[in-house]
Amino acid sequence: MTDRGRLPQFDGVFAPVVYRDAAIDLLDQTLLPEEETVLRLATVDEVAEAIRVMRVRGAPAIGVTAAYGMVLAAAADPAIEAMERAAEALRTTRPTAVNLAWALDRMLRVRRRLDTDPSESIVEQLLAEARQIHAEDIAANRAIGAAGADLLPDDAVVLTICNTGALATGGIGTAYGVIRTAHERGRLQLAYACETRPRLQGARLTAWELLRDGIPFRLLADGAAGALMATRRIDAVLVGADRIARNGDTANKIGTYALAVLAGHHRVPLYAVAPTSTIDPASPTGAAIPIEERNAGEILAPRGVRLAPSAADAWNPAFDVTPAELVAGIVTERGVHRPPYDVSLPGRDRG
Amino acid sequence: MTDRGRLPQFDGVFAPVVYRDAAIDLLDQTLLPEEETVLRLATVDEVAEAIRVMRVRGAPAIGVTAAYGMVLAAAADPAIEAMERAAEALRTTRPTAVNLAWALDRMLRVRRRLDTDPSESIVEQLLAEARQIHAEDIAANRAIGAAGADLLPDDAVVLTICNTGALATGGIGTAYGVIRTAHERGRLQLAYACETRPRLQGARLTAWELLRDGIPFRLLADGAAGALMATRRIDAVLVGADRIARNGDTANKIGTYALAVLAGHHRVPLYAVAPTSTIDPASPTGAAIPIEERNAGEILAPRGVRLAPSAADAWNPAFDVTPAELVAGIVTERGVHRPPYDVSLPGRDRG
Repeated sequence: MTDRGRLPQFDGVFAPVVYRDAAIDLLDQTLLPEEETVLRLATVDEVAEAIRVMRVRGAPAIGVTAAYGMVLAAAADPAIEAMERAAEALRTTRPTAVNLAWALDRMLRVRRRLDTDPSESIVEQLLAEARQIHAEDIAANRAIGAAGADLLPDDAVVLTICNTGALATGGIGTAYGVIRTAHERGRLQLAYACETRPRLQGARLTAWELLRDGIPFRLLADGAAGALMATRRIDAVLVGADRIARNGDTANKIGTYALAVLAGHHRVPLYAVAPTSTIDPASPTGAAIPIEERNAGEILAPRGVRLAPSAADAWNPAFDVTPAELVAGIVTERGVHRPPYDVSLPGRDRG
Repeated sequence: MTDRGRLPQFDGVFAPVVYRDAAIDLLDQTLLPEEETVLRLATVDEVAEAIRVMRVRGAPAIGVTAAYGMVLAAAADPAIEAMERAAEALRTTRPTAVNLAWALDRMLRVRRRLDTDPSESIVEQLLAEARQIHAEDIAANRAIGAAGADLLPDDAVVLTICNTGALATGGIGTAYGVIRTAHERGRLQLAYACETRPRLQGARLTAWELLRDGIPFRLLADGAAGALMATRRIDAVLVGADRIARNGDTANKIGTYALAVLAGHHRVPLYAVAPTSTIDPASPTGAAIPIEERNAGEILAPRGVRLAPSAADAWNPAFDVTPAELVAGIVTERGVHRPPYDVSLPGRDRG
């Protein structure tokens, strides 16, 4: 079931996903920027499909979506075993974004606590928890935006990759939230946005948000980032994160590592910007982070438009790992963390 | 006038451009890999348009095409002033590839030498010169391929960008010629090819050639090159050149500079591979090389497929400059030149 043109809202502001009347409203990001189509998802299977094919993407937004998915699971069958099966179905949709597992585990913990409650109450309390996860992400985004914007000079010119805005989170975004906050403070001159092949989240999604927010920007081919740093003043590279290891190694959209090496070469600080829910206490270093490889078709024939000969093959990792030594700071809702990260990063859920 | 399916040949092998029966046969590379359409160009204006919109591209191939274009100019009006006007029309089509100006100047020099000859003889002698330029490029490609392949280990795994093959030159190619020669020697394990946004010469053209030549390869998004070097053995990065300054600074397809910084970071040698006609004695350093900026539409709506919102803008330099210190060697038909390049590079036309 779809609804065109009316975007989902949470607490009166745009959200890529919300829970309403026993189903999820989800803006189908595969159709942006041409079409603003809101899907109604009523089952865990529909939610899993939406995450897998990236109708919703961005680690924090995936976490919020999965939490709402667990509410649908409880409404269908509140038995703990059934909910654990639902969590597994959701958990395996995307391997790298740790916020997904984090949100599912949090929902399962709440479910186990309610073991003797009647089913209606279970669904209600799980919905309250999912909305709490969503509200926490909104608050975290605001704190992140403020902390990150403090790092930028006046008339800042920044470079970003992928989409880390409202579409990727519950709130105003992570790296994008820093850009938006700097713009709100009148301190942003220009944002450069990598188009971000293969899925073009920069060209399709970040550009859509930048236009909505009235922020001056220019897109560029991912390969042009080196020439950009060599020929223009760039004050900071701002990137999101899909998983941060305890030592600060950061998994993020493919291309981030190249930006980090280039930024290091040009002495431009690169900041990883993410809520603490992105820090994975189970990953001591980046070597422990699973990297999703997606279909070669995303390279060879993106969005159904064939570019390469049909017999060609492609290597298509969705993420890469940037070593901590190339990350000048990690910005979370608790502030700016500096190396050594094994000391400065908060233990997730331990703060 | 077009002819589908029959590819142009020079000396019995495929060439992207040849002169035949008072016109130019030119494979329209904007239609590859889906369509193999051969255009018949009969006027300088048609040749200029073909270069400008990149129906033919690659610095050496542009030079050969421009030389044949000067034959068409002579057939239309062999007066020196008319030919100088024709040369200017061709020269301004693409600013960075120095082979274009080099070929035009060489044709004009021949024309001036023939000042008292009858027109038929002028056209014939200019055609002989253009074919000589073409034949020299073929021979240079073979020598370049052999010299470059000598640099690679057994079972070599290499990375390349853009298209530097038969489509980009008169012969087997420059960087691609090295790959092809290593493959012919049984010493190439795998070639990785950057898709090369915005024009996708890697995905469209290099993949087309690699398949024709039976060379094992995988495409990748340009942003994945860093992750590739971080996670897999890469023996060399092989790139072409559109203009090489006297000090070895090398202008090439946008994205090359980022590859060079990454290669330096990972201690992988990057070789610039080009005929000596690409060396510009008038450019002491890369700072003197004009960098073409192309239409933002190549980023925003490539090949007519809209990616970004229509109100978005983009920065779209077609080339970047790699400083000589990031170039491990420059491979020409005269061998492998090592730093310091101001000493080791041959003066063009002075060898």
